Amino acid sequence: MTGSAGVGMGPGGEFDLIRMMLERWGDLARGIGDDAALLDVPRGERLVVSTDASVEGRHFRRHWLTPTEIGQRAVAAALSDLAAMAATPLGVLVSLALPDGDTGLLPQLADGIGQAVRAAGTVIVGGNMTAAAELSITTTVLGSAHAPLTRSGARAGDALYVTGRLGGPAAALAAWNAGLTPAGAHRQRFAAPAPRLVEARWLARAGATAAIDISDGLAAEVEHLAAASGVRVELDPVSVPVMEGATFEGACAGGEEYELLVAAAATLDVAAFMARFGVPLTRVGTVLPRSPDTDHRARVVGRGGHDHFSR
Amino acid sequence: MTGSAGVGMGPGGEFDLIRMMLERWGDLARGIGDDAALLDVPRGERLVVSTDASVEGRHFRRHWLTPTEIGQRAVAAALSDLAAMAATPLGVLVSLALPDGDTGLLPQLADGIGQAVRAAGTVIVGGNMTAAAELSITTTVLGSAHAPLTRSGARAGDALYVTGRLGGPAAALAAWNAGLTPAGAHRQRFAAPAPRLVEARWLARAGATAAIDISDGLAAEVEHLAAASGVRVELDPVSVPVMEGATFEGACAGGEEYELLVAAAATLDVAAFMARFGVPLTRVGTVLPRSPDTDHRARVVGRGGHDHFSR
Repeated sequence: MTGSAGVGMGPGGEFDLIRMMLERWGDLARGIGDDAALLDVPRGERLVVSTDASVEGRHFRRHWLTPTEIGQRAVAAALSDLAAMAATPLGVLVSLALPDGDTGLLPQLADGIGQAVRAAGTVIVGGNMTAAAELSITTTVLGSAHAPLTRSGARAGDALYVTGRLGGPAAALAAWNAGLTPAGAHRQRFAAPAPRLVEARWLARAGATAAIDISDGLAAEVEHLAAASGVRVELDPVSVPVMEGATFEGACAGGEEYELLVAAAATLDVAAFMARFGVPLTRVGTVLPRSPDTDHRARVVGRGGHDHFSR
Repeated sequence: MTGSAGVGMGPGGEFDLIRMMLERWGDLARGIGDDAALLDVPRGERLVVSTDASVEGRHFRRHWLTPTEIGQRAVAAALSDLAAMAATPLGVLVSLALPDGDTGLLPQLADGIGQAVRAAGTVIVGGNMTAAAELSITTTVLGSAHAPLTRSGARAGDALYVTGRLGGPAAALAAWNAGLTPAGAHRQRFAAPAPRLVEARWLARAGATAAIDISDGLAAEVEHLAAASGVRVELDPVSVPVMEGATFEGACAGGEEYELLVAAAATLDVAAFMARFGVPLTRVGTVLPRSPDTDHRARVVGRGGHDHFSR
């Protein structure tokens, strides 16, 4: 951890807490103990890097999730940005902010962080710990890719696909906000997202031209992808894969799915993908040239996604 | 910024705020707009990466500093970890958390972040923005080095040097905590630290064997370096460079200096360093073999440094 942890840590409560986490992580934590971590990017590959914050009261509420789930979810959500680029993870840095009285949560938080890191086949290379008014986890993910996917490569004629089934996180949030208990399957989609890392690399190898992960909602991500690629997108509303018990609106406008929206040829071998991963891959639309009389907004659905500053 | 900003940003308040910052940063922000940033590590060099949080009420108080200083200081402190490794910065990611009512601070915060980035000759490659209960800036710094300095390379016979003059930040904090106005020079040392990036690379080329930045206080950092290197250190208290008007105790135990503690041969050309940079470089001690009857603690000074979880 930055400036403090690992080999040669001095005395003090912060160091003791970091030591405890390092013990729980075991081999999952690598090379921690210097002011910064050292990593090697495979020759011929580019470094891919992103940072993402998960803040109590904004991205989750503590009575919705176990501390283990809070840790797992924060890191999985950050890793999803590497999936969107079809990158292979090299390591993560975890910056924890924790209210003074809450250090008892740390063992479970550390276990959840470790679960997400292990599931992605990567390691923890550094981090930071501080006291704060509320619990937050800021995760920086490092990866590499020979030919990273971006959101700007979609071309007219491509088909648009989405992984998984959408609407679960929105349904869980709707239940919690109404004081109800979400259906187990919906809660699971919110509490334990799975970054589509391996799936993304398969899609990139299969010729995908652009990708983005669905953190702000399908409708918003379609707009982002269309704007970045300079194209127009026609979504087919009937085809949007809505999770059982979820709503169409939740599937289009709800965020925090961490599924992938991908542009690729209409001939993409969807059956091979589904056979390989057991994850649905659904064609939801078509990429069209941008015409002078339209902007980049997707048809069918209006503005969607969420916005941390306005809610 | 992660998942949202730059090319192809959709509608929404968060995006507007990010757009505003990107406009202020101009050429300082590079390649933002995809789910993750792409960077290239120079061939033959290793990636050096660290993350650091600066939290209101923990690392600074808002009435102590201008928003510009808060931004500048957060990024400078994070870059100091690259200096400790003698790395050259490749880019930074800035994760901002801001109370809902405080978005008016953003232009100045952005300017301060930009100042620190420009002064280090680097760029902003990504980030994140969220609402939160208190203002915080979590900065991830990426750099590269052919032969990074670590804290574990000090050898018996080396001399121990420190850059700059210490005690200014501790004196400023003591004044603020007593309800007084700090001396301008002390305040400046707290408000506008300068990461010793170029100085560190000079020292590495001149044969330094180990380095650490002084974020937790000289005494604590001496302990960290001694423990990591498996050596003992004898500090000469009379030689510690105390800033005018500061106390010896503040110079030894006060943190947030962002100067460097460096092990190198006793023949290091101190005069050449000072002529080149106009920054003091002072021999403060000697590296000795660890003897069976002593632990790694430095002599002279007891435990020092600060600890975010215990204060």
